[in-house]
Amino acid sequence: MVSSWGQHLRITIFGESHGPQIGVVLDGLPPGEELDLESIQAFLRRRAPGRTPWSTARREEDSFSIVSGFYQGCTTGTPLCALLANKDVRSESYTQFQQLPRPSHADYTGWIRYAGANDPRGGGHFSGRLTAPLCLAGAIALQILSRRGVTVAARLAQIGPVQDVPLDLARPDPPLLHALTKKDFPVVDDTKGREMQAAIEAARAGGDSVGGVIQAFVLGLPPGLGDPIFGGVESRAASLLYGIPAVKGVSFGAGFQVCARRGSENNDAFCLEEGRVRTRTNNDGGLNGGITNGMPVVVNVAVKPTPSIGLPQQSVDVQAGREDTLSITGRHDPCLVPRALPAVEAALGLVFLDLFVGAYGVTGRP
Amino acid sequence: MVSSWGQHLRITIFGESHGPQIGVVLDGLPPGEELDLESIQAFLRRRAPGRTPWSTARREEDSFSIVSGFYQGCTTGTPLCALLANKDVRSESYTQFQQLPRPSHADYTGWIRYAGANDPRGGGHFSGRLTAPLCLAGAIALQILSRRGVTVAARLAQIGPVQDVPLDLARPDPPLLHALTKKDFPVVDDTKGREMQAAIEAARAGGDSVGGVIQAFVLGLPPGLGDPIFGGVESRAASLLYGIPAVKGVSFGAGFQVCARRGSENNDAFCLEEGRVRTRTNNDGGLNGGITNGMPVVVNVAVKPTPSIGLPQQSVDVQAGREDTLSITGRHDPCLVPRALPAVEAALGLVFLDLFVGAYGVTGRP
Amino acid sequence: MVSSWGQHLRITIFGESHGPQIGVVLDGLPPGEELDLESIQAFLRRRAPGRTPWSTARREEDSFSIVSGFYQGCTTGTPLCALLANKDVRSESYTQFQQLPRPSHADYTGWIRYAGANDPRGGGHFSGRLTAPLCLAGAIALQILSRRGVTVAARLAQIGPVQDVPLDLARPDPPLLHALTKKDFPVVDDTKGREMQAAIEAARAGGDSVGGVIQAFVLGLPPGLGDPIFGGVESRAASLLYGIPAVKGVSFGAGFQVCARRGSENNDAFCLEEGRVRTRTNNDGGLNGGITNGMPVVVNVAVKPTPSIGLPQQSVDVQAGREDTLSITGRHDPCLVPRALPAVEAALGLVFLDLFVGAYGVTGRP
Amino acid sequence: MVSSWGQHLRITIFGESHGPQIGVVLDGLPPGEELDLESIQAFLRRRAPGRTPWSTARREEDSFSIVSGFYQGCTTGTPLCALLANKDVRSESYTQFQQLPRPSHADYTGWIRYAGANDPRGGGHFSGRLTAPLCLAGAIALQILSRRGVTVAARLAQIGPVQDVPLDLARPDPPLLHALTKKDFPVVDDTKGREMQAAIEAARAGGDSVGGVIQAFVLGLPPGLGDPIFGGVESRAASLLYGIPAVKGVSFGAGFQVCARRGSENNDAFCLEEGRVRTRTNNDGGLNGGITNGMPVVVNVAVKPTPSIGLPQQSVDVQAGREDTLSITGRHDPCLVPRALPAVEAALGLVFLDLFVGAYGVTGRP
Repeated sequence: MVSSWGQHLRITIFGESHGPQIGVVLDGLPPGEELDLESIQAFLRRRAPGRTPWSTARREEDSFSIVSGFYQGCTTGTPLCALLANKDVRSESYTQFQQLPRPSHADYTGWIRYAGANDPRGGGHFSGRLTAPLCLAGAIALQILSRRGVTVAARLAQIGPVQDVPLDLARPDPPLLHALTKKDFPVVDDTKGREMQAAIEAARAGGDSVGGVIQAFVLGLPPGLGDPIFGGVESRAASLLYGIPAVKGVSFGAGFQVCARRGSENNDAFCLEEGRVRTRTNNDGGLNGGITNGMPVVVNVAVKPTPSIGLPQQSVDVQAGREDTLSITGRHDPCLVPRALPAVEAALGLVFLDLFVGAYGVTGRP
Repeated sequence: MVSSWGQHLRITIFGESHGPQIGVVLDGLPPGEELDLESIQAFLRRRAPGRTPWSTARREEDSFSIVSGFYQGCTTGTPLCALLANKDVRSESYTQFQQLPRPSHADYTGWIRYAGANDPRGGGHFSGRLTAPLCLAGAIALQILSRRGVTVAARLAQIGPVQDVPLDLARPDPPLLHALTKKDFPVVDDTKGREMQAAIEAARAGGDSVGGVIQAFVLGLPPGLGDPIFGGVESRAASLLYGIPAVKGVSFGAGFQVCARRGSENNDAFCLEEGRVRTRTNNDGGLNGGITNGMPVVVNVAVKPTPSIGLPQQSVDVQAGREDTLSITGRHDPCLVPRALPAVEAALGLVFLDLFVGAYGVTGRP
Repeated sequence: MVSSWGQHLRITIFGESHGPQIGVVLDGLPPGEELDLESIQAFLRRRAPGRTPWSTARREEDSFSIVSGFYQGCTTGTPLCALLANKDVRSESYTQFQQLPRPSHADYTGWIRYAGANDPRGGGHFSGRLTAPLCLAGAIALQILSRRGVTVAARLAQIGPVQDVPLDLARPDPPLLHALTKKDFPVVDDTKGREMQAAIEAARAGGDSVGGVIQAFVLGLPPGLGDPIFGGVESRAASLLYGIPAVKGVSFGAGFQVCARRGSENNDAFCLEEGRVRTRTNNDGGLNGGITNGMPVVVNVAVKPTPSIGLPQQSVDVQAGREDTLSITGRHDPCLVPRALPAVEAALGLVFLDLFVGAYGVTGRP
Repeated sequence: MVSSWGQHLRITIFGESHGPQIGVVLDGLPPGEELDLESIQAFLRRRAPGRTPWSTARREEDSFSIVSGFYQGCTTGTPLCALLANKDVRSESYTQFQQLPRPSHADYTGWIRYAGANDPRGGGHFSGRLTAPLCLAGAIALQILSRRGVTVAARLAQIGPVQDVPLDLARPDPPLLHALTKKDFPVVDDTKGREMQAAIEAARAGGDSVGGVIQAFVLGLPPGLGDPIFGGVESRAASLLYGIPAVKGVSFGAGFQVCARRGSENNDAFCLEEGRVRTRTNNDGGLNGGITNGMPVVVNVAVKPTPSIGLPQQSVDVQAGREDTLSITGRHDPCLVPRALPAVEAALGLVFLDLFVGAYGVTGRP
């Protein structure tokens, strides 16, 4: 335990990178919600490997089938299980890692945690591949949320040393955010996007990898969602976002930048706009005391450079009990960030649908 | 919901800032654990207000009583409830905030969330005062963990623009970390500490406040603790740490710094030390795939500047429906960071005792 | 773990029979609900010991104080903690039971479960005294439910061999049920009630005890409450009812009697009454597939005879490792059933308030 | 929610009677446990329909595939998902029931609960077919438990008015119990078994059905398993057992019979046997205060007569809003009890494996 998450809506993720199938169960979905399977498939395609030059060589169509909780085009409200097949599986290249674990990977910790019984192929249950069922669940949640006026959009805020342009956290341009969800490489400033792609390509060419930052916006939320103390949106969102492999930091609004500021500079003054309470700035990322204040929720996610790299690295042969050099052959993903981006959107979709169902009951409708 | 947290060990926090009592229930403690009440009281004193020049004017002794789950000096294993009284309560100064909410505070969101029924005095259930029962629970967990070889120590890594000296995340000096837990103002470099205190005093004098970063180390952990996906240490720790008011960011190891790095630079190479698998660096903060690798777990927590400041601020009179200026009188806490520090240590104590009980069963002993 | 219960509304019970205080935390209550403390106290009095000839000699006023989650006469929606003091505590008489455990009591199993560290005085956390906080929580839930048209009433259906008259499970007379909640000894037929009291008195006089059956009705429920499989009303109710000491059986509607029947005899035919779907009979106790069908929910609870009796019994001296005879002196409760009755009502109040909050959201209002 | 169950080991069941696949996810299994797939299949066959004269006409092979959490013949410790296909599906016969619901079935309540969006075919998610994944999960748990010395065996204690012979609850004969798990019609006295089968056949011939009682024994349990209050074995077991369709009563040990007894008659006196603490009788069914006392755990489960019968019944046309007569054609299962029996065994396997993992940690080994 625990590959499950959620209080009112509960997702359970299962599968291994090279097993026959991976999937997800969603329990607690509002009944009678039409699902557009084409859109879900399109959402999954954004995450799928092998599609872009900056991605891994593995190719997966990520076509899915829903085997329960779905009837006559709509959710039934009973548990929805969706399955994806693993097709492009070349396991021989992974067997060495249980003996000589990859630095900064879960090879070693998984081996210890499961006393050697875990499936090591392709990272097993720890693989980034497990973000596919997360994205699938999130795509369903996002469709349902969009009918309640809520949209989520994320961008690559940073790749290696290259940063996208700053955005007004309080009043981001909705069409601009919407456009991000249609881009192959979602940045606001495409010039910066090309620099980022060059940084990825340079890393790849050097047998290396780069990290980055994803920044996501949730628009259209009513104030008053979330719970105090450990039920705050930050607690809920972080516990889910840290389920995405390679995430090492999660912050909200202005994030770690607030630490160097004074209160007078950082506080988000209240104002009235068309009769509604708003804030002038949004350093708090739309959240006070863990509860939405009606402003956009802004989340920043730090993704580390892919630990699987081509350059030789020092490791330990855990069976022989001696240090050894690890050389990974084959093409690897030089940057996980673009593929982690839809997983971040998916996670936020799940966080807020969970809260809608909690706040408004089984229909998730105010 | 949810003011509860934990999978195997469950804490439930209750109370309001100006109610008669606040407290915590811990369910799932190992039985037969001796508790040193003096040490718990000393731990609570680190958090208590009114003790230092850089703190709020409210004075609370934070003396506690344990009313259940404790017999003949030891935990019984049944739910332990501990209570603290609220004594220094001056509520008249808070009544205005339900009408004219403080920017970046939970006054407005709490009022919406609870349809006006919440207790607004002193921030009610959203008050930083609720970290007292968290610290109490954590102090108990830390005592039990210390018998299993695990210690937690945190420092003020940054206050406003002033940063403490860098530490080697892989091999921090244990006596140096231990010394932190005895300091009134826990920094490694006391010169930097004095600069930080000056920054706090300057903010206070200007009717303003400052934020900061807390960095915590957990030493003595075995490898293999934690669970995959949403059960990872990061997910568990972040969900608890975000329950501490004013926390806006949580990261592990090198945190957001990893985003700009290459994998070859960031990966933590494995090595052997006295026959044990270790890593040379510790950018991952002791965690791979959500599971401990036997290195120190390193956590960074961003705390925003106290939103309650003396300078006038713009707000909205939510009853009259017009913008208005808010002026808060009385002395306020110019920096929450020093008092949030023991709460961070407490939270990590709870995270790992929860994992010990999960991994090893009800005794929490390997 | 686990002294907590509930999915949407969560109660956590703590305390030991002879500790200073016992209590309960309710998290997830709808905000803004007025609480009539006098009525809660009156409800608690029904459970309190020392009040009637057929009860134990221990006298407890069971006066309570609410220390959180309650402001200006109403629930705030944040965790409500209520405390009760233990006053009439004579512990010396219990110390022997950790050595020579009482048959059919939790003395032995508690000692094993907690490796001897549990508080043995008065049964500790296993004591029937812990139904006081359960009743307190339930009394709050019942008040809130009554504003939503739901009432709960229970009767002593059997004490020892004496049975109360049968009731029509489909159309019980509401005034008759309401009258039960006002009776000191809640039976429909008071002649039978006097026979039951005579059976209790005879047991008491013989140093012995008797068991019985409680039958509870929940009226005014809408159809459609509950969830499939493990989320059914039966699963939820039974898991809570078995938290009441001495309960050994829980059934719904016609209960174990249905086993001997044919389907044609047992099925509850649908009919229309004033345009609403109803059933002619109610052998299913208002539940199909775990979900309310709009008929009264009927629950039967089997309570065993009090295990503490005056007659000498065989036990084992677990420290000396030899069989020995146990003689319990002092006056004991010859029948737990009348005092378990309000706990059953309380439990059902909690079950359905939990479901209202789940179905309709944080206000618990359709 | 909630089609999940379990605290330390978590099962999640999904699927509908006539959907493409049904299945289960088990999270928290001990790693490295060899699974004998043949035995699991044999266990499933005991539940499968169409196999015996007293069963439904539907024929399902119930062959399953494990798609995750299983590697090189052993559990990995990560979530295990197993799938079963629905093959013998004739849905046309069910479409009428959403309009004219079957008495004492979940047709009406499911329709209300899910606002008409649930899959009505074959009872959908409420179908007895969903006991197949429960049995599958339980068969896995039982294999793992058997390596820890724990075995579960159940019998048909009653079918209609016919009862099997009484058994000594304290010292049931282990070979006799073991033989039950091998019988097609598990009763102790086969003469009684033939009478029961005659009762089923008579009901079937009359277009009717019968109910019955299942009695299960769990042998080999250590004392001290379980938790107080809502974490007792009774609470856990009942919450799971009530997830089996048609169960209307659950009791432990002597069950409802204890109500008529005196304490002196009902108490289970302690004794020493080969140096171990035991009880002479076992009216408490091996449980005191919710915790195992080392005696066999005895559970009684009341199963109502199958609500689907051939005789005409009164129902309500919920679309037309008028009473109408329902006639169900086709062959139906005249008695659910024999097929519910392996589900009861499976449930108890899950209850105790959950407790082993909680008590002893992730390996589930003392």
